[in-house]
Amino acid sequence: MKKQELRMIFTEIIRKKRDGFPLTGEEIDFTIEGYMDSKIPDYQMSAFLMAVVLKGMDSNETFLLTEAMLSSGQTFDLSKIPGKKIDKHSTGGVGDKVSLILAPIVASCGVVVPMVSGRGLGHTGGTLDKLESIPGFRTNLEYKEFYAILEKIGVAMMGQTEKIVPADKKMYSLRDVTGTVESIPLITASILSKKLASGIDGLVLDVKCGKGAFMKTKEEAGRLVSSMNSVMKGFGKECTSIITNMDQPLGMYVGNSLEVMEVIECLKGNGPSDLMQVTLSLCSEMLIMGKRALNRDEAIPVLKDAIKSGKALDKFRNMVELQGGNLGVIGDYSLLPVSRNKKEIRTEESGWISEIDAYEVGIVNLLLGGGRRRKEDEINPGVGIVFEKKVGDRVDKDEPIATIYFDKVLDEEIEKRFTSSIKISSESVKKPTMIM
Amino acid sequence: MKKQELRMIFTEIIRKKRDGFPLTGEEIDFTIEGYMDSKIPDYQMSAFLMAVVLKGMDSNETFLLTEAMLSSGQTFDLSKIPGKKIDKHSTGGVGDKVSLILAPIVASCGVVVPMVSGRGLGHTGGTLDKLESIPGFRTNLEYKEFYAILEKIGVAMMGQTEKIVPADKKMYSLRDVTGTVESIPLITASILSKKLASGIDGLVLDVKCGKGAFMKTKEEAGRLVSSMNSVMKGFGKECTSIITNMDQPLGMYVGNSLEVMEVIECLKGNGPSDLMQVTLSLCSEMLIMGKRALNRDEAIPVLKDAIKSGKALDKFRNMVELQGGNLGVIGDYSLLPVSRNKKEIRTEESGWISEIDAYEVGIVNLLLGGGRRRKEDEINPGVGIVFEKKVGDRVDKDEPIATIYFDKVLDEEIEKRFTSSIKISSESVKKPTMIM
Repeated sequence: MKKQELRMIFTEIIRKKRDGFPLTGEEIDFTIEGYMDSKIPDYQMSAFLMAVVLKGMDSNETFLLTEAMLSSGQTFDLSKIPGKKIDKHSTGGVGDKVSLILAPIVASCGVVVPMVSGRGLGHTGGTLDKLESIPGFRTNLEYKEFYAILEKIGVAMMGQTEKIVPADKKMYSLRDVTGTVESIPLITASILSKKLASGIDGLVLDVKCGKGAFMKTKEEAGRLVSSMNSVMKGFGKECTSIITNMDQPLGMYVGNSLEVMEVIECLKGNGPSDLMQVTLSLCSEMLIMGKRALNRDEAIPVLKDAIKSGKALDKFRNMVELQGGNLGVIGDYSLLPVSRNKKEIRTEESGWISEIDAYEVGIVNLLLGGGRRRKEDEINPGVGIVFEKKVGDRVDKDEPIATIYFDKVLDEEIEKRFTSSIKISSESVKKPTMIM
Repeated sequence: MKKQELRMIFTEIIRKKRDGFPLTGEEIDFTIEGYMDSKIPDYQMSAFLMAVVLKGMDSNETFLLTEAMLSSGQTFDLSKIPGKKIDKHSTGGVGDKVSLILAPIVASCGVVVPMVSGRGLGHTGGTLDKLESIPGFRTNLEYKEFYAILEKIGVAMMGQTEKIVPADKKMYSLRDVTGTVESIPLITASILSKKLASGIDGLVLDVKCGKGAFMKTKEEAGRLVSSMNSVMKGFGKECTSIITNMDQPLGMYVGNSLEVMEVIECLKGNGPSDLMQVTLSLCSEMLIMGKRALNRDEAIPVLKDAIKSGKALDKFRNMVELQGGNLGVIGDYSLLPVSRNKKEIRTEESGWISEIDAYEVGIVNLLLGGGRRRKEDEINPGVGIVFEKKVGDRVDKDEPIATIYFDKVLDEEIEKRFTSSIKISSESVKKPTMIM
């Protein structure tokens, strides 16, 4: 087919979606294949994507889109590894280091966890960035090495490669600069095509909801959950979702190296309650899906024991070792690249903390150098924030509330932005519910 | 500003429109200037245009868009030519040769008619294509020559140049392949920026409505009218609109050379009633706007006299002469490149003609070679259709109803498509109302 003709046909597909009609599998395949062949140019694709953002896609179209994207690249075959292969995905938050804690815990309980993760963008952090703050830790594994580690210890964590769903990479770069990121079907297909490419049997979804999440309301989060469930069902895979609170940062540490410290503390049994509650809830769903527990009541003691017995920390140690990381960090946090410059922030009034705006804290970490505005930005793994107090805690005037770790100098604007993210009430405030 | 930053800012503008918020003048200027400077790439612009198609623009935004597009190129200053400068614009139809008849009539009554016209696309014809079927007739005038002819005889007809609203040319090429043509604000800004560039004081708008028009319903046509009126008002210019019937082709002739023959017949006083009714209604609005008549009752006799006295035909002759056309065509139609191959189409049944689908007739002319699918296509000016009968006329079995003029051979499929475009009823049918 000539390029010219192809463009004419694609114009008709754009018009069909623009006018709100559902597309057929043939049309969706034509779109993704044509775009990957560069027969469909960016300027047609972006108009198409905007039509999808504004007119939506039904669950069947979303399934077909996921399938077409999945077909654009390599898929892992983990069927020869015994046991269920279950992954977790979070829609992104601030202080969300759950993957690093959860993967070794679940793997130590006999469920295989093949995790292909992403990097942080904007106010949210990313699993790869956190892992890479461990000196020597390699996330750029090839399929073969990933497979070998999984086979050996039941858990491995790698980054996206060029071969896994290249359609998502190409489409996401375009969506990022054309205002077409915010769309349930596009988000669903982007996440699930990558997750399905890694050969999983099931997926537990942590849908973050609140100030620091992409989904601001429970309704939006609910729509994403039902879209994801329906697509996974279409592929004959299991999917469970938990909507969790992301109004304030999760746990006490925000920043790449700092969060790794908190992860190790959690695996040692010293995790803060909000973070452990979310982690264990997700772990418990993975155990159920992986046929290692019948229900939550059965799962929780097993998980707690995995931590208490040191099995989970051992699994983490194995993974760090096999992926080239410096094992010393587990006993000696000074081996992590944490910034030496720090400033304690104290309260100006007494009362109860009523808000720590997760979005603002995420931006502060970004401004400190710990995040990236654009995919190609470099990050500083040493900066971040350690909280002493969280929402619901009582504070006295002049009491330390948090410590900011910064590079060279602490910009006054950044400090001000940080302090403004915290609100104190004169009346007592309840601890927030984590599982919504 | 760096390209990167510019794209980030433009992404915010896209998102704003996507979420349904009105844009400011600054944002709209930034968009058009950035696009013309190629700082905003096609793939961002097409996402923006799709957001405009689906979320619309209010009348203020449409005014600002028209203004920004107008600023992208040359504007004619006709203020030194005495009298009101009034133009007419039609939204496009089949057999619509009104401009060629109207311009000399109105000019012969003392209103200056500076007409910058377009070419046919898809099923609709274009004024330039018709004019160019007169051997030697040049439409590619530069401003200076256009001005000189206008100054001398009060009427001139030229094509778009690269200098007139280049933003429209660039945007239209993109809209054409991204499903973003159908949008009242984009259509309004496209038409009016070009019309305003030609230095007019007022515009009479012929909004075609029906099977052969882009606007299929009166409601849609009404929305375009009110959008156009409001923008013209914003520029302090007059604007009157007439919604006219485009269910069947206008007049008896369809095809470029054939329509020129009909134009000359109209100027000689032998025009068919439907075509003359539309033409005189539009002329009368132009005379009123040009202060040459107080109202329609006053205008009509003046216009009829312009035809009867031969003044209108003289004006046409002057224009053809000054624009390099062969004057002989006025007396001898064989000088026009009309195809020698023709086939008479006869009815298969008796009755009254109840429908001649203008869209289908337009497509038949296109398929015969008389139109273009894409802007760069060449056309054959000699092909087309001459009707003997129109909707409401009584026909007997085997009576000639139309003649098809074709190149080389008449494809059976085309003939079939033509005959299927005509419906005959056993009950009598009223002549359609032309002015809606």
